[in-house]
Amino acid sequence: MLIKTVTNILDANNRIAQDNRALFDEKKVFVINLMSSPGAGKTSLVERTIEGLRDQYRIAVIEGDIQDNADAERIAKLEIPVTQINTGGACHIDGNMVRETLPDFDLDAIDLLITENVGNLVCPAEFSVGENIKVMILSTPEGDDKPRKYPLMFQESAALIINKMDLMEYVSFNLDKAVKDALIINPHLSILKVSCKTQAGLEQWIQWLRDQMNDFFAQRP
Amino acid sequence: MLIKTVTNILDANNRIAQDNRALFDEKKVFVINLMSSPGAGKTSLVERTIEGLRDQYRIAVIEGDIQDNADAERIAKLEIPVTQINTGGACHIDGNMVRETLPDFDLDAIDLLITENVGNLVCPAEFSVGENIKVMILSTPEGDDKPRKYPLMFQESAALIINKMDLMEYVSFNLDKAVKDALIINPHLSILKVSCKTQAGLEQWIQWLRDQMNDFFAQRP
Repeated sequence: MLIKTVTNILDANNRIAQDNRALFDEKKVFVINLMSSPGAGKTSLVERTIEGLRDQYRIAVIEGDIQDNADAERIAKLEIPVTQINTGGACHIDGNMVRETLPDFDLDAIDLLITENVGNLVCPAEFSVGENIKVMILSTPEGDDKPRKYPLMFQESAALIINKMDLMEYVSFNLDKAVKDALIINPHLSILKVSCKTQAGLEQWIQWLRDQMNDFFAQRP
Repeated sequence: MLIKTVTNILDANNRIAQDNRALFDEKKVFVINLMSSPGAGKTSLVERTIEGLRDQYRIAVIEGDIQDNADAERIAKLEIPVTQINTGGACHIDGNMVRETLPDFDLDAIDLLITENVGNLVCPAEFSVGENIKVMILSTPEGDDKPRKYPLMFQESAALIINKMDLMEYVSFNLDKAVKDALIINPHLSILKVSCKTQAGLEQWIQWLRDQMNDFFAQRP
Protein backbone atom coordinates (compact mmCIF):
# COMPACT_ATOMS: atom_id res chain seq x y z
CA MET A 1 0.00 0.00 0.00
CA LEU A 2 1.23 3.42 -0.93
CA ILE A 3 1.45 5.79 2.00
CA LYS A 4 1.24 9.40 1.01
CA THR A 5 3.16 11.80 3.17
CA VAL A 6 1.98 15.39 3.49
CA THR A 7 5.08 17.51 3.86
CA ASN A 8 4.03 21.08 3.14
CA ILE A 9 1.35 22.39 5.46
CA LEU A 10 1.31 25.65 3.52
CA ASP A 11 -0.28 23.89 0.56
CA ALA A 12 -3.61 23.50 2.32
CA ASN A 13 -3.55 27.15 3.30
CA ASN A 14 -2.69 28.29 -0.19
CA ARG A 15 -5.55 26.27 -1.66
CA ILE A 16 -8.06 27.88 0.71
CA ALA A 17 -6.54 31.31 0.18
CA GLN A 18 -7.00 30.88 -3.58
CA ASP A 19 -10.65 29.97 -3.03
CA ASN A 20 -11.04 33.10 -0.91
CA ARG A 21 -9.39 35.14 -3.64
CA ALA A 22 -11.74 33.78 -6.32
CA LEU A 23 -14.72 34.66 -4.16
CA PHE A 24 -13.40 38.16 -3.44
CA ASP A 25 -12.82 38.70 -7.19
CA GLU A 26 -16.34 37.57 -8.01
CA LYS A 27 -17.80 39.84 -5.34
CA LYS A 28 -15.43 42.72 -6.19
CA VAL A 29 -13.98 42.97 -2.73
CA PHE A 30 -10.50 44.50 -2.37
CA VAL A 31 -8.72 42.83 0.55
CA ILE A 32 -5.78 44.09 2.60
CA ASN A 33 -3.81 41.81 4.91
CA LEU A 34 -2.42 44.26 7.48
CA MET A 35 0.60 43.11 9.46
CA SER A 36 3.04 44.50 12.04
CA SER A 37 4.69 43.92 15.40
CA PRO A 38 2.44 44.14 18.45
CA GLY A 39 1.58 47.76 19.19
CA ALA A 40 2.85 49.31 15.95
CA GLY A 41 -0.55 50.87 15.32
CA LYS A 42 -2.56 48.48 13.14
CA THR A 43 -5.93 49.19 14.73
CA SER A 44 -5.27 52.94 14.75
CA LEU A 45 -4.45 52.81 11.05
CA VAL A 46 -7.63 50.83 10.36
CA GLU A 47 -9.63 53.48 12.23
CA ARG A 48 -8.01 56.32 10.28
CA THR A 49 -8.47 54.43 6.99
CA ILE A 50 -12.17 53.92 7.68
CA GLU A 51 -12.55 57.62 8.44
CA GLY A 52 -10.73 58.54 5.23
CA LEU A 53 -12.55 56.19 2.85
CA ARG A 54 -15.98 55.49 4.30
CA ASP A 55 -17.70 58.18 2.25
CA GLN A 56 -16.44 56.55 -0.93
CA TYR A 57 -16.34 52.81 -0.17
CA ARG A 58 -18.22 50.23 1.91
CA ILE A 59 -15.71 48.82 4.38
CA ALA A 60 -15.58 45.75 6.63
CA VAL A 61 -12.92 44.49 9.01
CA ILE A 62 -11.68 41.15 10.34
CA GLU A 63 -9.69 41.45 13.56
CA GLY A 64 -7.13 38.76 14.36
CA ASP A 65 -5.94 38.30 17.92
CA ILE A 66 -4.77 35.35 19.95
CA GLN A 67 -7.51 36.19 22.41
CA ASP A 68 -9.44 39.32 23.46
CA ASN A 69 -11.76 41.37 21.28
CA ALA A 70 -10.83 44.92 22.30
CA ASP A 71 -9.78 45.85 18.74
CA ALA A 72 -13.07 44.62 17.28
CA GLU A 73 -14.90 46.74 19.84
CA ARG A 74 -12.93 49.78 18.67
CA ILE A 75 -13.98 49.13 15.05
CA ALA A 76 -17.59 48.38 15.99
CA LYS A 77 -17.82 51.85 17.51
CA LEU A 78 -17.35 53.22 13.98
CA GLU A 79 -20.43 51.22 12.90
CA ILE A 80 -18.47 49.11 10.44
CA PRO A 81 -19.14 45.36 10.05
CA VAL A 82 -16.41 43.55 12.02
CA THR A 83 -15.69 39.97 13.03
CA GLN A 84 -13.10 38.92 15.57
CA ILE A 85 -10.92 35.88 14.97
CA ASN A 86 -9.38 34.51 18.15
CA THR A 87 -6.58 32.24 17.01
CA GLY A 88 -6.28 30.53 20.38
CA GLY A 89 -2.51 30.57 20.42
CA ALA A 90 -1.66 30.70 16.73
CA CYS A 91 0.62 33.62 15.94
CA HIS A 92 -1.02 34.60 12.65
CA ILE A 93 -4.32 34.36 10.81
CA ASP A 94 -4.57 32.09 7.79
CA GLY A 95 -6.83 31.48 4.82
CA ASN A 96 -9.04 29.03 6.63
CA MET A 97 -9.68 31.29 9.60
CA VAL A 98 -10.71 34.08 7.25
CA ARG A 99 -12.83 31.60 5.26
CA GLU A 100 -14.79 30.73 8.39
CA THR A 101 -15.68 34.37 9.05
CA LEU A 102 -17.01 35.06 5.53
CA PRO A 103 -20.60 33.90 6.20
CA ASP A 104 -20.76 36.75 8.73
CA PHE A 105 -20.42 39.31 5.93
CA ASP A 106 -22.56 40.39 2.98
CA LEU A 107 -19.75 40.42 0.43
CA ASP A 108 -22.00 42.06 -2.16
CA ALA A 109 -22.14 45.09 0.11
CA ILE A 110 -18.38 45.39 0.74
CA ASP A 111 -15.77 47.15 -1.41
CA LEU A 112 -12.84 47.00 1.00
CA LEU A 113 -12.12 44.27 3.56
CA ILE A 114 -9.25 44.88 5.94
CA THR A 115 -7.91 41.85 7.81
CA GLU A 116 -5.83 42.92 10.78
CA ASN A 117 -3.36 40.17 11.55
CA VAL A 118 -1.98 39.06 14.91
CA GLY A 119 0.85 41.32 16.03
CA ASN A 120 3.93 39.50 14.78
CA LEU A 121 6.67 40.58 12.40
CA VAL A 122 7.46 37.02 11.28
CA CYS A 123 4.83 34.35 10.58
CA PRO A 124 1.90 36.37 9.18
CA ALA A 125 3.98 37.06 6.06
CA GLU A 126 4.05 33.31 5.33
CA PHE A 127 0.28 32.81 5.14
CA SER A 128 -2.00 34.26 2.48
CA VAL A 129 -5.61 34.86 3.43
CA GLY A 130 -6.55 35.58 -0.19
CA GLU A 131 -5.69 39.27 0.02
CA ASN A 132 -5.01 41.59 -2.91
CA ILE A 133 -2.11 43.16 -1.07
CA LYS A 134 -0.18 42.79 2.13
CA VAL A 135 0.53 46.05 3.93
CA MET A 136 2.90 46.30 6.87
CA ILE A 137 3.50 48.89 9.55
CA LEU A 138 6.85 49.62 11.17
CA SER A 139 6.72 52.09 14.05
CA THR A 140 9.70 54.29 14.82
CA PRO A 141 10.23 53.07 18.43
CA GLU A 142 10.88 49.56 17.06
CA GLY A 143 14.12 50.74 15.50
CA ASP A 144 15.56 51.16 12.01
CA ASP A 145 17.15 47.69 12.01
CA LYS A 146 13.93 45.79 11.38
CA PRO A 147 14.17 45.45 7.56
CA ARG A 148 17.46 43.60 7.92
CA LYS A 149 16.21 41.42 10.76
CA TYR A 150 12.73 40.53 9.49
CA PRO A 151 13.11 40.67 5.70
CA LEU A 152 10.27 38.39 4.62
CA MET A 153 7.52 40.75 5.70
CA PHE A 154 9.16 43.66 3.88
CA GLN A 155 9.59 41.42 0.84
CA GLU A 156 5.94 40.33 0.78
CA SER A 157 4.35 43.72 1.36
CA ALA A 158 3.15 46.14 -1.31
CA ALA A 159 3.36 49.05 1.11
CA LEU A 160 5.38 49.85 4.19
CA ILE A 161 3.77 52.37 6.49
CA ILE A 162 6.24 53.96 8.87
CA ASN A 163 4.06 54.99 11.80
CA LYS A 164 4.63 57.04 14.95
CA MET A 165 6.63 59.63 13.03
CA ASP A 166 5.72 62.00 15.90
CA LEU A 167 7.97 59.90 18.20
CA MET A 168 10.98 59.95 15.89
CA GLU A 169 12.64 62.82 17.73
CA TYR A 170 12.52 60.84 21.01
CA VAL A 171 13.86 57.54 19.70
CA SER A 172 16.94 56.65 17.72
CA PHE A 173 15.42 55.81 14.36
CA ASN A 174 17.41 56.53 11.23
CA LEU A 175 14.69 57.00 8.63
CA ASP A 176 17.09 57.01 5.66
CA LYS A 177 18.63 53.72 6.80
CA ALA A 178 15.25 52.04 7.32
CA VAL A 179 13.98 53.18 3.92
CA LYS A 180 17.18 52.20 2.14
CA ASP A 181 17.31 48.74 3.71
CA ALA A 182 13.62 48.12 3.03
CA LEU A 183 14.07 49.04 -0.64
CA ILE A 184 17.08 46.75 -0.98
CA ILE A 185 14.84 43.87 0.14
CA ASN A 186 11.89 44.99 -1.97
CA PRO A 187 12.51 47.65 -4.64
CA HIS A 188 8.76 47.78 -5.44
CA LEU A 189 7.75 48.71 -1.90
CA SER A 190 5.68 51.90 -1.57
CA ILE A 191 6.77 53.69 1.59
CA LEU A 192 4.42 56.05 3.43
CA LYS A 193 5.37 58.01 6.52
CA VAL A 194 2.47 58.71 8.89
CA SER A 195 1.48 59.47 12.42
CA CYS A 196 -1.88 57.98 13.32
CA LYS A 197 -1.77 60.21 16.39
CA THR A 198 -1.20 63.61 14.72
CA GLN A 199 -2.76 62.45 11.38
CA ALA A 200 0.35 63.61 9.48
CA GLY A 201 0.85 61.75 6.22
CA LEU A 202 -2.47 59.90 6.37
CA GLU A 203 -3.88 61.64 3.28
CA GLN A 204 -1.02 60.21 1.19
CA TRP A 205 -1.75 56.72 2.50
CA ILE A 206 -5.46 57.08 1.79
CA GLN A 207 -4.72 58.28 -1.74
CA TRP A 208 -2.27 55.43 -2.33
CA LEU A 209 -4.88 52.92 -1.22
CA ARG A 210 -7.57 54.59 -3.34
CA ASP A 211 -5.29 54.22 -6.38
CA GLN A 212 -4.80 50.49 -5.71
CA MET A 213 -8.53 49.98 -5.34
CA ASN A 214 -9.32 51.94 -8.49
CA ASP A 215 -6.91 49.74 -10.45
CA PHE A 216 -8.64 46.64 -9.06
CA PHE A 217 -12.17 47.83 -9.79
CA ALA A 218 -11.16 49.04 -13.28
CA GLN A 219 -10.27 45.43 -14.13
CA ARG A 220 -13.70 44.23 -12.93
CA PRO A 221 -16.30 46.51 -14.51
CA MET B 1 2.27 -3.64 12.34
CA LEU B 2 1.83 -0.91 14.88
CA ILE B 3 2.37 2.52 13.42
CA LYS B 4 3.39 5.07 16.00
CA THR B 5 2.17 8.57 15.34
CA VAL B 6 4.11 11.52 16.70
CA THR B 7 1.60 14.21 17.50
CA ASN B 8 3.37 16.67 19.76
CA ILE B 9 6.35 18.35 18.16
CA LEU B 10 7.09 20.08 21.44
CA ASP B 11 8.12 16.76 22.95
CA ALA B 12 11.36 16.67 21.00
CA ASN B 13 12.15 20.21 22.00
CA ASN B 14 11.37 19.58 25.64
CA ARG B 15 13.65 16.56 25.70
CA ILE B 16 16.56 18.55 24.31
CA ALA B 17 15.77 21.49 26.60
CA GLN B 18 15.92 19.12 29.58
CA ASP B 19 19.31 17.88 28.43
CA ASN B 20 20.48 21.49 28.16
CA ARG B 21 19.13 22.18 31.65
CA ALA B 22 20.99 19.18 33.13
CA LEU B 23 24.22 20.39 31.53
CA PHE B 24 23.70 23.95 32.77
CA ASP B 25 23.03 22.63 36.29
CA GLU B 26 26.18 20.53 36.20
CA LYS B 27 28.23 23.47 34.96
CA LYS B 28 26.47 25.93 37.31
CA VAL B 29 25.32 28.22 34.54
CA PHE B 30 22.28 30.41 35.22
CA VAL B 31 20.35 30.86 31.98
CA ILE B 32 17.86 33.56 31.01
CA ASN B 33 15.58 33.24 28.00
CA LEU B 34 14.88 36.88 27.09
CA MET B 35 11.81 37.55 24.99
CA SER B 36 9.86 40.53 23.60
CA SER B 37 8.32 42.09 20.52
CA PRO B 38 10.73 43.35 17.88
CA GLY B 39 12.38 46.57 19.01
CA ALA B 40 11.28 46.50 22.66
CA GLY B 41 14.89 46.76 23.80
CA LYS B 42 16.23 43.24 24.32
CA THR B 43 19.76 43.95 23.13
CA SER B 44 19.90 47.23 25.05
CA LEU B 45 18.87 45.41 28.21
CA VAL B 46 21.50 42.75 27.60
CA GLU B 47 24.13 45.49 27.24
CA ARG B 48 23.02 47.23 30.44
CA THR B 49 22.89 43.88 32.29
CA ILE B 50 26.42 43.04 31.21
CA GLU B 51 27.63 46.45 32.42
CA GLY B 52 25.88 45.95 35.75
CA LEU B 53 27.01 42.40 36.50
CA ARG B 54 30.29 41.83 34.69
CA ASP B 55 32.42 42.69 37.72
CA GLN B 56 30.69 39.97 39.71
CA TYR B 57 29.84 37.26 37.18
CA ARG B 58 31.23 35.76 33.98
CA ILE B 59 28.64 36.35 31.28
CA ALA B 60 27.98 34.94 27.81
CA VAL B 61 25.27 35.65 25.27
CA ILE B 62 23.43 33.78 22.52
CA GLU B 63 21.75 36.07 20.00
CA GLY B 64 18.73 34.75 18.11
CA ASP B 65 17.66 36.42 14.88
CA ILE B 66 16.01 35.24 11.71
CA GLN B 67 18.99 36.60 9.86
CA ASP B 68 21.61 39.33 10.39
CA ASN B 69 24.18 39.49 13.19
CA ALA B 70 24.06 43.16 14.17
CA ASP B 71 23.04 42.35 17.75
CA ALA B 72 25.89 39.90 18.21
CA GLU B 73 28.28 42.59 16.96
CA ARG B 74 26.95 44.96 19.63
CA ILE B 75 27.61 42.36 22.34
CA ALA B 76 31.04 41.45 20.96
CA LYS B 77 32.07 45.09 21.39
CA LEU B 78 31.70 44.55 25.14
CA GLU B 79 34.23 41.68 24.88
CA ILE B 80 31.73 39.09 26.04
CA PRO B 81 31.57 35.59 24.44
CA VAL B 82 28.66 35.65 22.00
CA THR B 83 27.26 33.31 19.37
CA GLN B 84 24.66 34.27 16.80
CA ILE B 85 21.84 31.86 15.91
CA ASN B 86 20.22 32.65 12.57
CA THR B 87 16.96 30.77 12.58
CA GLY B 88 16.51 31.11 8.82
CA GLY B 89 12.84 31.97 9.04
CA ALA B 90 11.82 30.36 12.33
CA CYS B 91 10.16 32.90 14.61
CA HIS B 92 11.77 31.69 17.85
CA ILE B 93 14.84 29.88 19.12
CA ASP B 94 14.44 26.40 20.55
CA GLY B 95 16.35 23.91 22.67
CA ASN B 96 18.09 22.30 19.75
CA MET B 97 19.36 25.58 18.29
CA VAL B 98 20.84 26.51 21.67
CA ARG B 99 22.25 22.98 22.01
CA GLU B 100 24.16 23.43 18.77
CA THR B 101 25.83 26.61 19.96
CA LEU B 102 27.08 25.14 23.25
CA PRO B 103 30.36 23.73 21.88
CA ASP B 104 31.27 27.37 21.14
CA PHE B 105 31.32 28.17 24.85
CA ASP B 106 33.48 27.14 27.80
CA LEU B 107 30.59 26.48 30.19
CA ASP B 108 33.00 26.06 33.11
CA ALA B 109 33.89 29.72 32.67
CA ILE B 110 30.32 31.07 32.52
CA ASP B 111 28.03 32.01 35.40
CA LEU B 112 25.29 33.70 33.44
CA LEU B 113 24.15 32.87 29.91
CA ILE B 114 21.61 35.18 28.33
CA THR B 115 19.76 33.87 25.28
CA GLU B 116 18.13 36.70 23.38
CA ASN B 117 15.17 35.32 21.48
CA VAL B 118 13.79 36.39 18.10
CA GLY B 119 11.56 39.44 18.45
CA ASN B 120 8.10 37.93 18.78
CA LEU B 121 5.51 38.19 21.54
CA VAL B 122 3.93 34.81 20.76
CA CYS B 123 5.89 31.68 19.85
CA PRO B 124 9.10 32.04 21.91
CA ALA B 125 7.04 31.47 25.05
CA GLU B 126 6.14 27.98 23.81
CA PHE B 127 9.71 26.67 23.50
CA SER B 128 12.09 26.07 26.37
CA VAL B 129 15.80 26.31 25.65
CA GLY B 130 16.66 24.86 29.08
CA GLU B 131 16.60 28.24 30.81
CA ASN B 132 16.25 28.85 34.54
CA ILE B 133 13.86 31.70 33.92
CA LYS B 134 12.09 33.40 31.10
CA VAL B 135 12.17 37.20 31.23
CA MET B 136 10.09 39.39 28.97
CA ILE B 137 10.19 43.04 28.00
CA LEU B 138 7.17 45.17 27.17
CA SER B 139 7.98 48.67 25.94
CA THR B 140 5.57 51.52 26.56
CA PRO B 141 5.01 52.44 22.86
CA GLU B 142 3.57 48.94 22.31
CA GLY B 143 0.57 49.82 24.46
CA ASP B 144 -0.97 48.70 27.74
CA ASP B 145 -3.26 46.13 26.07
CA LYS B 146 -0.53 43.57 25.46
CA PRO B 147 -1.05 41.40 28.59
CA ARG B 148 -4.63 40.71 27.52
CA LYS B 149 -3.72 40.07 23.91
CA TYR B 150 -0.57 37.96 24.36
CA PRO B 151 -1.15 36.24 27.70
CA LEU B 152 1.10 33.19 27.31
CA MET B 153 4.34 35.13 27.43
CA PHE B 154 3.24 36.98 30.57
CA GLN B 155 2.19 33.66 32.07
CA GLU B 156 5.51 31.96 31.35
CA SER B 157 7.81 34.75 32.48
CA ALA B 158 9.35 35.17 35.92
CA ALA B 159 9.90 38.87 35.34
CA LEU B 160 8.27 41.53 33.21
CA ILE B 161 10.48 44.46 32.39
CA ILE B 162 8.54 47.52 31.30
CA ASN B 163 11.05 49.40 29.16
CA LYS B 164 11.11 52.84 27.54
CA MET B 165 9.59 54.45 30.61
CA ASP B 166 11.14 57.69 29.28
CA LEU B 167 8.65 57.58 26.39
CA MET B 168 5.57 57.06 28.56
CA GLU B 169 4.67 60.75 28.52
CA TYR B 170 4.56 60.74 24.70
CA VAL B 171 2.47 57.59 24.23
CA SER B 172 -0.85 56.48 25.67
CA PHE B 173 0.29 53.75 28.06
CA ASN B 174 -1.70 53.19 31.24
CA LEU B 175 0.91 51.71 33.56
CA ASP B 176 -1.59 50.72 36.25
CA LYS B 177 -3.70 48.86 33.70
CA ALA B 178 -0.73 47.01 32.20
CA VAL B 179 0.55 45.98 35.64
CA LYS B 180 -2.87 44.93 36.86
CA ASP B 181 -3.65 42.85 33.76
CA ALA B 182 -0.21 41.21 33.82
CA LEU B 183 -0.66 40.22 37.48
CA ILE B 184 -4.11 38.75 36.78
CA ILE B 185 -2.47 36.45 34.23
CA ASN B 186 0.54 35.71 36.43
CA PRO B 187 0.34 36.73 40.11
CA HIS B 188 3.96 35.63 40.64
CA LEU B 189 5.37 37.98 38.00
CA SER B 190 8.06 40.38 39.20
CA ILE B 191 7.57 43.71 37.45
CA LEU B 192 10.46 46.12 36.91
CA LYS B 193 10.12 49.53 35.31
CA VAL B 194 13.21 50.71 33.46
CA SER B 195 14.55 52.93 30.75
CA CYS B 196 17.57 51.43 29.03
CA LYS B 197 18.10 54.88 27.52
CA THR B 198 18.15 56.99 30.70
CA GLN B 199 19.25 54.01 32.89
CA ALA B 200 16.35 54.68 35.29
CA GLY B 201 15.31 51.56 37.20
CA LEU B 202 18.15 49.40 35.94
CA GLU B 203 19.71 49.00 39.39
CA GLN B 204 16.51 47.35 40.65
CA TRP B 205 16.56 44.93 37.70
CA ILE B 206 20.22 44.10 38.27
CA GLN B 207 19.56 43.48 41.96
CA TRP B 208 16.53 41.31 41.17
CA LEU B 209 18.62 39.20 38.81
CA ARG B 210 21.48 39.00 41.32
CA ASP B 211 19.01 37.61 43.88
CA GLN B 212 17.78 34.92 41.45
CA MET B 213 21.34 33.91 40.64
CA ASN B 214 22.35 33.80 44.29
CA ASP B 215 19.44 31.45 45.01
CA PHE B 216 20.53 29.21 42.15
CA PHE B 217 24.18 29.09 43.18
CA ALA B 218 23.26 28.54 46.84
CA GLN B 219 21.59 25.28 45.80
CA ARG B 220 24.74 24.15 43.95
CA PRO B 221 27.67 24.72 46.28
